[in-house]
Amino acid sequence: MDSISELRQDIVSGDWVVIATGRAKRPQDFLKSKRKPFNQPKTACPFEAMEKEPLLFYSHDGKNDSENWWVEAIPNKFPAFGKGVCETYEKKGPYKKKEGVGFHEVVVTRDHDRPLATMTEEEIELVIRVFQERYLALQAQPCIEYISIFQNQGASSGASLSHPHAQIIAIPVVPPDIGRSLRGSVTYFQEHNACVHCAVIEYEVSIKERIIYENEQMVVLSPYATKSAFEMRILPKQHNARFETTVLKDRFALADALRNALGKLYKGLDDPDYNFFLHTAPVFGVEEYRHYHWHIEILPKTSIWAGFEIGTGIEISAVTPEAAAAFLRNIIL
Amino acid sequence: MDSISELRQDIVSGDWVVIATGRAKRPQDFLKSKRKPFNQPKTACPFEAMEKEPLLFYSHDGKNDSENWWVEAIPNKFPAFGKGVCETYEKKGPYKKKEGVGFHEVVVTRDHDRPLATMTEEEIELVIRVFQERYLALQAQPCIEYISIFQNQGASSGASLSHPHAQIIAIPVVPPDIGRSLRGSVTYFQEHNACVHCAVIEYEVSIKERIIYENEQMVVLSPYATKSAFEMRILPKQHNARFETTVLKDRFALADALRNALGKLYKGLDDPDYNFFLHTAPVFGVEEYRHYHWHIEILPKTSIWAGFEIGTGIEISAVTPEAAAAFLRNIIL
Repeated sequence: MDSISELRQDIVSGDWVVIATGRAKRPQDFLKSKRKPFNQPKTACPFEAMEKEPLLFYSHDGKNDSENWWVEAIPNKFPAFGKGVCETYEKKGPYKKKEGVGFHEVVVTRDHDRPLATMTEEEIELVIRVFQERYLALQAQPCIEYISIFQNQGASSGASLSHPHAQIIAIPVVPPDIGRSLRGSVTYFQEHNACVHCAVIEYEVSIKERIIYENEQMVVLSPYATKSAFEMRILPKQHNARFETTVLKDRFALADALRNALGKLYKGLDDPDYNFFLHTAPVFGVEEYRHYHWHIEILPKTSIWAGFEIGTGIEISAVTPEAAAAFLRNIIL
Repeated sequence: MDSISELRQDIVSGDWVVIATGRAKRPQDFLKSKRKPFNQPKTACPFEAMEKEPLLFYSHDGKNDSENWWVEAIPNKFPAFGKGVCETYEKKGPYKKKEGVGFHEVVVTRDHDRPLATMTEEEIELVIRVFQERYLALQAQPCIEYISIFQNQGASSGASLSHPHAQIIAIPVVPPDIGRSLRGSVTYFQEHNACVHCAVIEYEVSIKERIIYENEQMVVLSPYATKSAFEMRILPKQHNARFETTVLKDRFALADALRNALGKLYKGLDDPDYNFFLHTAPVFGVEEYRHYHWHIEILPKTSIWAGFEIGTGIEISAVTPEAAAAFLRNIIL
């Protein structure tokens, strides 16, 4: 059986890319005239006519009630990863590749037009609960080394459907960006005998300049070295490498923090498109990674990373994180 | 005097970002309703009414003729880097920063509507000559460690003006992506006693599967581990770490390769937006970098890097480089 995709390693940087070998588009499909419009009316929304069995669902009151489901996890109809042989590497001339073994799921809420930013704390907690449950189910699968949870909101963020949804991708390698963060946090620990994210939180909470919102368990801040205007990070105040171990109380605190972060963005910048993603340690068993500290990054699409950013890896932010934090802090929901 | 910008170092990854402290926008400027339209009519094009003295110009016949200039380099009106103190680092709490010392220039051709893809080999050679001349002038400036040359073509590529133009940014650090490529090429050299890019060229030219175009000096190919659909790389066949040492004959060969690469993209995919950038060794004197091999990368904007790509650093390509190369190879200009 052919696998859905192939992971190929860049021979110079060592980074991985995914080539959709199994479901590749034809070159002609990339003509401008072939592009599909982004906003689907409810009657044409693929999430409204779901044939597949959901993997997990909750009704509004948190019950496994299939008729009154409000949030569910379903397999992605066009997955980037799927079944395959969990080999190490295959040599291909001077190059290395491996099969794109993994899982690709979608987390969808029932309301066709209602973004996460406008949901209640209780609703967002249910979405986070689905993230956590599916994370725990997928990490137990063979071959999986990392699980990425993310949301693309709006056409310019790269979403292909207007119905709000998040995605979960479980993959057989530790991603390059996560690898670099892990190495950075280990280096800091060796030099300072402390978690780098804990040190950042302590400093930021004391000076308050870049704090956007906080509750007892969570802090929302503009990072000092921000990658784009209005970037936000949500971090648990207590040291924890693993999102999937979050307890009920902290899940509600995270829902409150996420509601405030996305709500301020929605109100302050007129519903901008954004990407958010979770950074957490690789799945248990790969290594220990006790020095890591899970967090969520929210990147509004206020600009496009262009030739300089793509060519150098240096992002330019046209607003200071201090001004962005002051602006967002003062938005009252 | 306040500097135009600040380089801030990410405390975890060690990567640099640029914060436009001196010319920062107000948060309100990011409201959707404030966004400017992309296509400027010729009468409203800022390049048509240039007040500043050009830094360098050539007429169509390659002379320094200011009245009949056809291509020129000018200072960017809204630079991301500028004058400042060339210090090492300044500590700011647990963080590090330095002033955004450098240069930011624009290379513009006279025709308001005529993209590089439709120019003649002689015209493109003049553009490359301006790149090379300005590179040589800027590398002699104090504090400069890297010079990035790139072009953003079309609104979705991040360009803000529709009049075709390229940019040159000279900066006081070696960019993270370049640093990783340099380390990767040194590692390969130590293991194989050969340049990694030379090994790739030799293999690719022998199997032909991913070759799009070649002439005596240059090769245009789809990289095995492509970062996006239809990505192209142009490499000199002869080993050379430094673009700025390119001789006249090779500059014409590069112009021919670039004309074919961009022309095939323009014709085959109906004038898609794209970013192109030059990867060359850091400026002379930083280190030797003899194992590096300069090249140009062209990335058409056929998709948007979204939450998974930004969150992991793993790009997904929906067309195989083999299919992309076959498609582009067969486009006859």
